[in-house]
Amino acid sequence: MSQRYKVVIEYDGTNFAGFQVQPNQRTVEAVLVDVVNRIAKNPLPAIAVYGSGRTDAGVHAHGQVVHFDLPKPIPAANLRLALNSMFPLDMSVKTVTEVDDNFHARFSTHGKRYRYIVSTTAFVDPFKRNYTGHYKYPLDVNRIRQALPDLTGEHDFTSFVASGSQAKSNVRTIYDIQVTNRPADHEVVFDFYGNGFLYNQVRIMVATLLEIGNGRRAADSLPALLAAKDRELARETAPASGLYLEEVIYPSNLDENR
Amino acid sequence: MSQRYKVVIEYDGTNFAGFQVQPNQRTVEAVLVDVVNRIAKNPLPAIAVYGSGRTDAGVHAHGQVVHFDLPKPIPAANLRLALNSMFPLDMSVKTVTEVDDNFHARFSTHGKRYRYIVSTTAFVDPFKRNYTGHYKYPLDVNRIRQALPDLTGEHDFTSFVASGSQAKSNVRTIYDIQVTNRPADHEVVFDFYGNGFLYNQVRIMVATLLEIGNGRRAADSLPALLAAKDRELARETAPASGLYLEEVIYPSNLDENR
Repeated sequence: MSQRYKVVIEYDGTNFAGFQVQPNQRTVEAVLVDVVNRIAKNPLPAIAVYGSGRTDAGVHAHGQVVHFDLPKPIPAANLRLALNSMFPLDMSVKTVTEVDDNFHARFSTHGKRYRYIVSTTAFVDPFKRNYTGHYKYPLDVNRIRQALPDLTGEHDFTSFVASGSQAKSNVRTIYDIQVTNRPADHEVVFDFYGNGFLYNQVRIMVATLLEIGNGRRAADSLPALLAAKDRELARETAPASGLYLEEVIYPSNLDENR
Repeated sequence: MSQRYKVVIEYDGTNFAGFQVQPNQRTVEAVLVDVVNRIAKNPLPAIAVYGSGRTDAGVHAHGQVVHFDLPKPIPAANLRLALNSMFPLDMSVKTVTEVDDNFHARFSTHGKRYRYIVSTTAFVDPFKRNYTGHYKYPLDVNRIRQALPDLTGEHDFTSFVASGSQAKSNVRTIYDIQVTNRPADHEVVFDFYGNGFLYNQVRIMVATLLEIGNGRRAADSLPALLAAKDRELARETAPASGLYLEEVIYPSNLDENR
């Protein structure tokens, strides 16, 4: 009997061409497929690895979730050690859980948390260049805070999706957005919690919120922007380097960790 | 009349082959010489840039100091902006000070502060792999603390110098060493303050202190190790990625910032 495993991983996205397998590119999924199949010593066809969703090149994860089935089960603790031992240094395993075959890393998703860290120094901080987005213009965090309620709730986010999205519907629900000013660190941090996010949606929302914080865009302009359903209006996309997939949330009955 | 400038810079050493110019390598000094000469629009011979000392490939700096002379002076604030605008993203300028011609970044040095950050997680943290040294074995920081007084003061550090050092004398004075346990961050941090350090000296001292913290080496073994003056005895060198040149200290009469 094969066993399904839910694995929570983190990675520094700097040197990956994103999550999804692409020919001749170093991707997180390609590393996972390679490592899992070497651990399983599995004959062809190769064991597939399913992620909760893609992350783009340069985007980081503290809590990406994947699942796969091993034809010959391995105890979870041993599997965790094996994965960590074989992973490259810019990936690591946080938890391994044995789950039943109803669990699917992508289709069982209840919600996701993303964090976006903005660095606000005048010039790029050399130690943060790959781990934040840089915004050198003045920011009024209270203006941003005023605008956040307009993005929460269920909306058609067509105005905030990048071309190239293959989603059938652009309707998503954002449960909560927080913005935190960390003046001592010269950082402004955005936390998004929603039932799912479209291609580049978080990065486009952040860029738009930064324009509001800077005063280039009115704090009350978001309802009209959403209503326009025009992906040309919100033109800026914050850089990938500031974005972190923090957590993927599943209904508790599918997830023994919660 | 030419003007001498003291410039404090920081850099992420990950993608540099160290500080010093080497043929066909990306080094901090090579970038500095290129940028300074482009700013000065200076005819040949090129303006030279003098650093306080080298740092190895992968070693970081929060406070490296360099000096150079501009034949046509530029106000310090403007020079800072020009340097920051032309630097690559993994370097930045902290301060620019006009100094008199007696100041020399290397020969005027009074002391240096180095920091070494050890990451103590079981597996390498993907986000710390380039910014810490990794040590996965148990550490008793109190054992390390016991041993520190044996390294402070004036000693012949021949047992703690890498082959390849070109120093005429291996006698140096360490004014202070501190070790700090940060269990919440899974880090142990070493701070060294001395009048100067030999090639790889800090990294060899850290590796030796970690062996003491782990119990593989006796806490009272350092006096004999120093007395042996044998560079084969302290065999381990902690990785470059954990080392930071924090500050270079000059006598106050040479340095208007202090």
